[in-house]
Amino acid sequence: MSAFFQQNLSIQTKGRGTLELTREIQAWVKKSQYAIGLCHLFVKHTSASLIICENADPQVRQDLDHYFASLVPDGDSLFLHNDEGPDDMPAHIRTILTQTSLTIPIQEGRLALGTWQGIYLYEHRYAPHQREIIITIQG
Amino acid sequence: MSAFFQQNLSIQTKGRGTLELTREIQAWVKKSQYAIGLCHLFVKHTSASLIICENADPQVRQDLDHYFASLVPDGDSLFLHNDEGPDDMPAHIRTILTQTSLTIPIQEGRLALGTWQGIYLYEHRYAPHQREIIITIQG
Amino acid sequence: MSAFFQQNLSIQTKGRGTLELTREIQAWVKKSQYAIGLCHLFVKHTSASLIICENADPQVRQDLDHYFASLVPDGDSLFLHNDEGPDDMPAHIRTILTQTSLTIPIQEGRLALGTWQGIYLYEHRYAPHQREIIITIQG
Repeated sequence: MSAFFQQNLSIQTKGRGTLELTREIQAWVKKSQYAIGLCHLFVKHTSASLIICENADPQVRQDLDHYFASLVPDGDSLFLHNDEGPDDMPAHIRTILTQTSLTIPIQEGRLALGTWQGIYLYEHRYAPHQREIIITIQG
Repeated sequence: MSAFFQQNLSIQTKGRGTLELTREIQAWVKKSQYAIGLCHLFVKHTSASLIICENADPQVRQDLDHYFASLVPDGDSLFLHNDEGPDDMPAHIRTILTQTSLTIPIQEGRLALGTWQGIYLYEHRYAPHQREIIITIQG
Repeated sequence: MSAFFQQNLSIQTKGRGTLELTREIQAWVKKSQYAIGLCHLFVKHTSASLIICENADPQVRQDLDHYFASLVPDGDSLFLHNDEGPDDMPAHIRTILTQTSLTIPIQEGRLALGTWQGIYLYEHRYAPHQREIIITIQG
């Protein structure tokens, strides 16, 4: 027999790059008081995404930023949709190549993440943005 | 206490490109009468996938098509699996780089999508195909 | 009214490449005895991932390996994080470009996979590793 706990979060980003959310999501799971279940995260945008990434060496996320900048070049002449600037269309593609939602198992009342796994919001626009995330916890 | 509502859909594509499903999925969520929960979509193929993409400017999906054509070149000599043509192996890779399933939260009886988020079936083969999708709604 | 069945699996990989898990996951779904529901898989690592891939021609997975090796070159000078070797940072990126978790619908007591869909653990490191996966079945 399971039930839902749902919460809307508003996260302020500092512009392009990753922002760790692990501790905050872990706190919501604890608050839900479900011992076993699933935690689902959903970002309500097409220019920001969610990833699970190595959480020990900050260099990993810098390398990731450089890699994505090379994989989806800003201002590429291929892109005709650029109303909001050279990072507009690349932000949509980077979102599609990563995740709009994550689902993580809950065991013994906690997110069952591996030792080196962290949850990150990935802002793909240059400018800081207010991003809306919905947490849905089932247990 | 939650329950499942499940439905199989059959979607006819027009060949490579994106096909919006948002309205249809929204109607199934309404029909399920769940106020809070999760909507899960699964495509039963390895040459078509699901994405959440910007839904306002059609140019975005055209740019996306051009980007994927450049990211995974059709007929690339790297690919030995080409029984069904130059788009065969690229279709498998494009599927793996995007999503075979999507999970979207339900709030107040509706998909809690952001303003600019649309749900799309992404056909990766040149030819039109009949694609099977399973909707599983929990609430 | 739904409930959870959860199981931790330990999978030994043989180094970089794909390893099929379909039969094993299908057996767990059968064991859960849920007729309708969802099966969620989560890999607790940032250097191995999960994919749904064509399961008929082994050439597809070889082409996929060659593609990813070209998409994220091992030892690329772009990567400063290389403590564990030239495959260290590429393994993190390959994980992010694929999936850390999969959710698959259950119908009539079985995974509702398409005819050509197989579930694979994708090891991204050269060396064999012990990988932990959590199965959460809801029904």
